[in-house]
Amino acid sequence: MIAALRCLPGVGPKSAQRMAYHLLQRDRAGALRLAHSLLNAATNMQHCQQCNNFSEQAVCPLCASPHRDVSMLCVVEMPADLLMMEQTQCYRGLYFVLMGRLSPLDGIGAKELHFDRLLKRVATHPCEVILATNFTVEGDATAHYLATLLQSQGIKVSRIARGLPVGGELEQVDAGTLAQAVLERREITL
Amino acid sequence: MIAALRCLPGVGPKSAQRMAYHLLQRDRAGALRLAHSLLNAATNMQHCQQCNNFSEQAVCPLCASPHRDVSMLCVVEMPADLLMMEQTQCYRGLYFVLMGRLSPLDGIGAKELHFDRLLKRVATHPCEVILATNFTVEGDATAHYLATLLQSQGIKVSRIARGLPVGGELEQVDAGTLAQAVLERREITL
Repeated sequence: MIAALRCLPGVGPKSAQRMAYHLLQRDRAGALRLAHSLLNAATNMQHCQQCNNFSEQAVCPLCASPHRDVSMLCVVEMPADLLMMEQTQCYRGLYFVLMGRLSPLDGIGAKELHFDRLLKRVATHPCEVILATNFTVEGDATAHYLATLLQSQGIKVSRIARGLPVGGELEQVDAGTLAQAVLERREITL
Repeated sequence: MIAALRCLPGVGPKSAQRMAYHLLQRDRAGALRLAHSLLNAATNMQHCQQCNNFSEQAVCPLCASPHRDVSMLCVVEMPADLLMMEQTQCYRGLYFVLMGRLSPLDGIGAKELHFDRLLKRVATHPCEVILATNFTVEGDATAHYLATLLQSQGIKVSRIARGLPVGGELEQVDAGTLAQAVLERREITL
């Protein structure tokens, strides 16, 4: 059991030992619940056919919801990014989760990220695609590659904005972000 | 001397005493240099007639430079913001320093910020005005007020971009900033 607990990220031999003894001595019910939920997840968790997010059903509740705006499709790297987008409560469209980012050195290319499924999806359900990959080198490269791919199919593609954070002051921001904020300034039309 | 040193921000009675003894016992030359530079600054430092920044000349070196792009005028709140903009090395236009922001409760209005001088300047030298006030409540209010004012004169006005910082990941950003980044997304045109 101690050896098995070490599969958890950030859990070394000492922590694993402490966890094991805690479960056995104090919380056998919790151990059983954990065992069942792990079993359930590992057996039943699959990828949603539409958004590629983890889901227990073939189509996840979010994709199946009739209350979402089907005219927008937001592409994110990871399920955690989808959760962040949902927390903003301003986006009501659908999602596509890449489960990664282009990273040729790690052998992660267009095939591993299911770009073909994304292309097929927008071909059958035309919509605006919002690229919300991270503003890291790999995230930017992924966005650029996807933009080229999607635009060649005549699909409207946009990228979430780069610039100063809300509440941000010029003095506290790094020079690179400020430079981008100037380059990507928006004309004000009242 | 101890009492006089306390006019420096963040210097209390103890620090002032330490500073005074240090200067008298160890660094009389430094004390003299400081006295001269304070005298010089307090006597000669004025506001540049063009950009309103601190300057020893009637027109500051930056405004007088022939290498700046006169088709762009960046409005910032404070001299420190101007320095930040210069550090980006991507902006080569001119500046106007408000020396504050609209703050009616503190009695700071359009008059105190010299909006009339700004208006006169863009009337005689038409250019694009880039509003680079902070993304705080007061900074935003100032930008909005200025945009209305300048656009009624037919001047092109833009605002630096709001969004995710360079290198930023969705997971680490606050919900407000992410919401703005989605609202202000840019269509990609290759």
